[in-house]
Amino acid sequence: MSYTAGVVGASGFTGGELLRLLAGHPEFEVVQATSRSKTNRTVGYVHPNLRDLELRYSSPEELVAVDVLFSATPHGVAMEEIDRYRDAAETVVDLSADFRLSTADQYEEWYDGHTRPELLDEAVYALPELGRDRLRGASLVATGGCNATVTILGLLPLFEAGLLTGSEQVVADLKVGSSEGGTGGGEAASHAERSGVVRPYAPTGHRHEAEIRELLGLELSFSAHAVDMVRGAAATCHVFPDSPVTRSTLWEAYRSCYADEPFVETVGGGNIYRYPEPKALAGTNRAAVGFEVDPDNGRLVLLSAIDNVMKGSAGQAVHAANVALGIEETAGLGFSGLHPVGAP
Amino acid sequence: MSYTAGVVGASGFTGGELLRLLAGHPEFEVVQATSRSKTNRTVGYVHPNLRDLELRYSSPEELVAVDVLFSATPHGVAMEEIDRYRDAAETVVDLSADFRLSTADQYEEWYDGHTRPELLDEAVYALPELGRDRLRGASLVATGGCNATVTILGLLPLFEAGLLTGSEQVVADLKVGSSEGGTGGGEAASHAERSGVVRPYAPTGHRHEAEIRELLGLELSFSAHAVDMVRGAAATCHVFPDSPVTRSTLWEAYRSCYADEPFVETVGGGNIYRYPEPKALAGTNRAAVGFEVDPDNGRLVLLSAIDNVMKGSAGQAVHAANVALGIEETAGLGFSGLHPVGAP
Amino acid sequence: MSYTAGVVGASGFTGGELLRLLAGHPEFEVVQATSRSKTNRTVGYVHPNLRDLELRYSSPEELVAVDVLFSATPHGVAMEEIDRYRDAAETVVDLSADFRLSTADQYEEWYDGHTRPELLDEAVYALPELGRDRLRGASLVATGGCNATVTILGLLPLFEAGLLTGSEQVVADLKVGSSEGGTGGGEAASHAERSGVVRPYAPTGHRHEAEIRELLGLELSFSAHAVDMVRGAAATCHVFPDSPVTRSTLWEAYRSCYADEPFVETVGGGNIYRYPEPKALAGTNRAAVGFEVDPDNGRLVLLSAIDNVMKGSAGQAVHAANVALGIEETAGLGFSGLHPVGAP
Amino acid sequence: MSYTAGVVGASGFTGGELLRLLAGHPEFEVVQATSRSKTNRTVGYVHPNLRDLELRYSSPEELVAVDVLFSATPHGVAMEEIDRYRDAAETVVDLSADFRLSTADQYEEWYDGHTRPELLDEAVYALPELGRDRLRGASLVATGGCNATVTILGLLPLFEAGLLTGSEQVVADLKVGSSEGGTGGGEAASHAERSGVVRPYAPTGHRHEAEIRELLGLELSFSAHAVDMVRGAAATCHVFPDSPVTRSTLWEAYRSCYADEPFVETVGGGNIYRYPEPKALAGTNRAAVGFEVDPDNGRLVLLSAIDNVMKGSAGQAVHAANVALGIEETAGLGFSGLHPVGAP
Repeated sequence: MSYTAGVVGASGFTGGELLRLLAGHPEFEVVQATSRSKTNRTVGYVHPNLRDLELRYSSPEELVAVDVLFSATPHGVAMEEIDRYRDAAETVVDLSADFRLSTADQYEEWYDGHTRPELLDEAVYALPELGRDRLRGASLVATGGCNATVTILGLLPLFEAGLLTGSEQVVADLKVGSSEGGTGGGEAASHAERSGVVRPYAPTGHRHEAEIRELLGLELSFSAHAVDMVRGAAATCHVFPDSPVTRSTLWEAYRSCYADEPFVETVGGGNIYRYPEPKALAGTNRAAVGFEVDPDNGRLVLLSAIDNVMKGSAGQAVHAANVALGIEETAGLGFSGLHPVGAP
Repeated sequence: MSYTAGVVGASGFTGGELLRLLAGHPEFEVVQATSRSKTNRTVGYVHPNLRDLELRYSSPEELVAVDVLFSATPHGVAMEEIDRYRDAAETVVDLSADFRLSTADQYEEWYDGHTRPELLDEAVYALPELGRDRLRGASLVATGGCNATVTILGLLPLFEAGLLTGSEQVVADLKVGSSEGGTGGGEAASHAERSGVVRPYAPTGHRHEAEIRELLGLELSFSAHAVDMVRGAAATCHVFPDSPVTRSTLWEAYRSCYADEPFVETVGGGNIYRYPEPKALAGTNRAAVGFEVDPDNGRLVLLSAIDNVMKGSAGQAVHAANVALGIEETAGLGFSGLHPVGAP
Repeated sequence: MSYTAGVVGASGFTGGELLRLLAGHPEFEVVQATSRSKTNRTVGYVHPNLRDLELRYSSPEELVAVDVLFSATPHGVAMEEIDRYRDAAETVVDLSADFRLSTADQYEEWYDGHTRPELLDEAVYALPELGRDRLRGASLVATGGCNATVTILGLLPLFEAGLLTGSEQVVADLKVGSSEGGTGGGEAASHAERSGVVRPYAPTGHRHEAEIRELLGLELSFSAHAVDMVRGAAATCHVFPDSPVTRSTLWEAYRSCYADEPFVETVGGGNIYRYPEPKALAGTNRAAVGFEVDPDNGRLVLLSAIDNVMKGSAGQAVHAANVALGIEETAGLGFSGLHPVGAP
Repeated sequence: MSYTAGVVGASGFTGGELLRLLAGHPEFEVVQATSRSKTNRTVGYVHPNLRDLELRYSSPEELVAVDVLFSATPHGVAMEEIDRYRDAAETVVDLSADFRLSTADQYEEWYDGHTRPELLDEAVYALPELGRDRLRGASLVATGGCNATVTILGLLPLFEAGLLTGSEQVVADLKVGSSEGGTGGGEAASHAERSGVVRPYAPTGHRHEAEIRELLGLELSFSAHAVDMVRGAAATCHVFPDSPVTRSTLWEAYRSCYADEPFVETVGGGNIYRYPEPKALAGTNRAAVGFEVDPDNGRLVLLSAIDNVMKGSAGQAVHAANVALGIEETAGLGFSGLHPVGAP
């Protein structure tokens, strides 16, 4: 193992997923996992899949020096703690929204402002399919948001191919799982209330809009719905290009965009899995993308799916760390997912 | 009880729901339920909630004379059998798509043509909120499709208020339950495959588009997704009116459209049920509608939900029969739904 | 409407179900619904299925005089408030465990003691199938617990027929839905944690054991498991009678026990619903019972199912009130359940 | 890679799981996957998690010579094809029931007889925790059934410690997922019918009883219930030892039985995962076991859980092959499972 790693906020869902990934990663050794509420507990006490791991939570107040520090805390924590993080580690990967946007103004508009805006320039947004160059050697990485990631991956090939320019209206309709709400929850997150819902929890005003707008430079109409699954995010983007686009042009766009991407698969064909579905991706760092052309009105329906805990968070963070440190990109991220699988 | 009723195709999901509703209806007595495959079985053998009902399936070959005959057969059957239906009953309510559209051309385009196009003029489309006049006394009623119903109910107030005119692009993104596929199913409908899905089963080309287009006269971009519930259909319509529309204008439009409607409730407010959700409507004939205004771009997000087996099919059929026969509209349709309820 | 009714604790799951039932009941008029946390809110704010109801929560501090007062509070409240309840109403129906057991010693053993043990003699346990005589005219009714009800209904016919005497070991293995935990919940009740579980939450020591032991007079080995549904409780009782029992003897025992019971159905036959299943009963006050004989060892497998919110709580309370007041037993309890239905 | 492998019946659920495991196994190279119905299709067409795999189905009529042949066909096929299998491979691992029992009489009693009873002596039952010696070098391996495996693993420590001798009555109450029914299914397996069930599908007479009886030598009362999950099997065994057993004695029994077992974890402690739960094991080859002592009557409640597709089938097969060939036992079976996870 070449690198030591620490995880701050390791009792949450994405923190636990980081521990799972790092424990199985050939190049990382986890030397610290912090949790304010679970200090001294084993990680297996909180994450039953990690009972084999000989590791106990320590307090976030005392950070051990590591090569890479992952922070999986709620929004607002990392910007307060960033100096301590950087004292502890040369490479910091933050999974919150604290360093994703590029200006303090955006944080005023979409969040509650920012206390360390001078770092926003330095921070590198990590959605590796958008570009890896800035990630290599980066010391402050901000991993892309789950709903932003799945939406961007569905749209990116059209922007890269010039089929969309940003002036068109893009409607993104998302369906997401309950793990996006994190542990705890409250009444609306209880099983009795949350089971079986199609709940439009953010018809407008979802914060991830900000990332998508900034990164793709587009007009966006974004609505998010909670549906009955725990892991998973699926985006259906309805777009209306200025001139007609054929299926073969789309295939070409997706292929050329993702041909060399280890974690994106373009799906099609005639069977029941002809479109992207999140459940086939549960536990993996892969995204699936696909599309359909509406013969009636030239609309393109762009479909994309991920596991929000993985490609939308912890997996993306490990992927980004791999790139930042020059490790093989797919290291530690090889799980292929399950079939059959219910509502993971 | 004032009227006798028969149900053709009563071993399917909507046929069983008709039996449930008619058995509890103060004005109907079910005298025949047919099923080709379950002849001589009790209806409780097929529908375990109806074990109390003393009724056995008979063959559809021998129709008993009744006041109202409901047909809940697969598409294509009713147009073949319509003469026999009308010989047996003065009022025929068909739950399939066979008499929903108004021209043979539409059936050529969206279905496999039509064998009795001369009846299309006479048939009355039943979505009572669209208008009751033609329904009163109608002898051939075609109940609206489930996905058409939920979409139309979300959009209707804007058309009635002149906020939409039909020239705007309307994106309708639907999430529906597995009962829409009917009994039987096949591999894609099996529990192992269908659980937990967000499956874009009809990103384009859904047949219910035809009804919506005809009835509202609009440009429509329609995509349907299977999600993990059995009953329920929810529509999210993204629309872009030519000039800005405020929340209060929308409230006014919905209120004036649905104020006197016994089966449509406009929802809002600040709690976890502020938007329409299908699960709260399971087993009821009610629709819930609601909306949000996107401050960024003037988009309106119109939300609507129903139980596809009820308001989207059997409930709508009984409602239509009530109107056609001059019975109290809400008769037999008073069930209020359950709370809590999981994934009905 | 002949009787006025009040519901204390009407913002919880069983309180909401009481409101639903009473609102549809031909003989009751709800004049008060109390909630400490939701005072002044409409009941539809808390229970989205009751939006039609013109009723707001009032404080439990000021009880209106009514004919029947239902109390759906957590265990321990009713015994403190019982004098105020009885001042307000001649008939009090308590849905908690506070008056179910007959001695203070039992409350010491299974709960946290009892503050009003002198009332335990007067209180009438309400599981009407166990006997109605004491219920008629009762002024203090304690409705049976959900898991006790489903277990007792499965076993009762064998005790009544003398096939079990109480000396045999009875193993009762229960599978229950998340609504048993009530609103709120906490981390273990969150959708992400609770979905898809088979969680043995009470392998031993479940409090409802006390009721079953007292009422049937038997040795009991009771274990309860949480499974993925919201409503529903199913019991599998494994019993080993001293001498062999045939299927026909069992049929006779169940039939003679339940022939005149309006809310218990004995199921059998050859199709997929040959055994009791809770989901077919969701929303109803019915219980289903059935059985199998193990040819290998003479074991009897007794199967029973209910909707815990209904036959296990609110429905049973209304049933008991009907009996106590001399109303038609089935009044207000006629809903037949749904088919198909997912995981209600 | 040291060994070539083939999978017969690779379009089913366990066949697909074998492909997943073998593709990630350091010592195996899959050179053939057969499917009668999907010949020439890619395996990714059938198993969407395996789209990366460059492999197409071939006909089972033409078996390629391999080192190990896994057969994942329905019961009855392997006994017909066994000569062809053994011609193709020195080591055959059968996942069906065809070689699990030791006498033709048992096959007469529990199945439809056996056509090759002379091989039953040679076949080695593979539940490695029951003993590895006979597995090493075995040429015909029969992997244990899913429900037998989970039940045996819960009971084994008590037999090994002499706390149970076989004369006691053991009640095993199982809760299992829909993947046990395999692909296809039919009406009872459809999502609409199967969702949310607690369905006692085999209250008596389950075929896996035969394995458990033979291997542990006990009296068994076995009942299996379908519950709402896709993967997973959980057993609750209620046992009544002749003399009282303490918790510490049980801990000692489980620890001494499983201390060196890489795939069995004994769970306990005070949090929400204090008992075995199948969902935490989804995708893994691990079993979890635990227990409770009923202070009332000395009953022991033994709890165990597995993923039926893995430890109950494909994982067990790979584990057995690892042992048979002298490979590191855990090779290819390292996946730790997911948290959170819904209803996998």
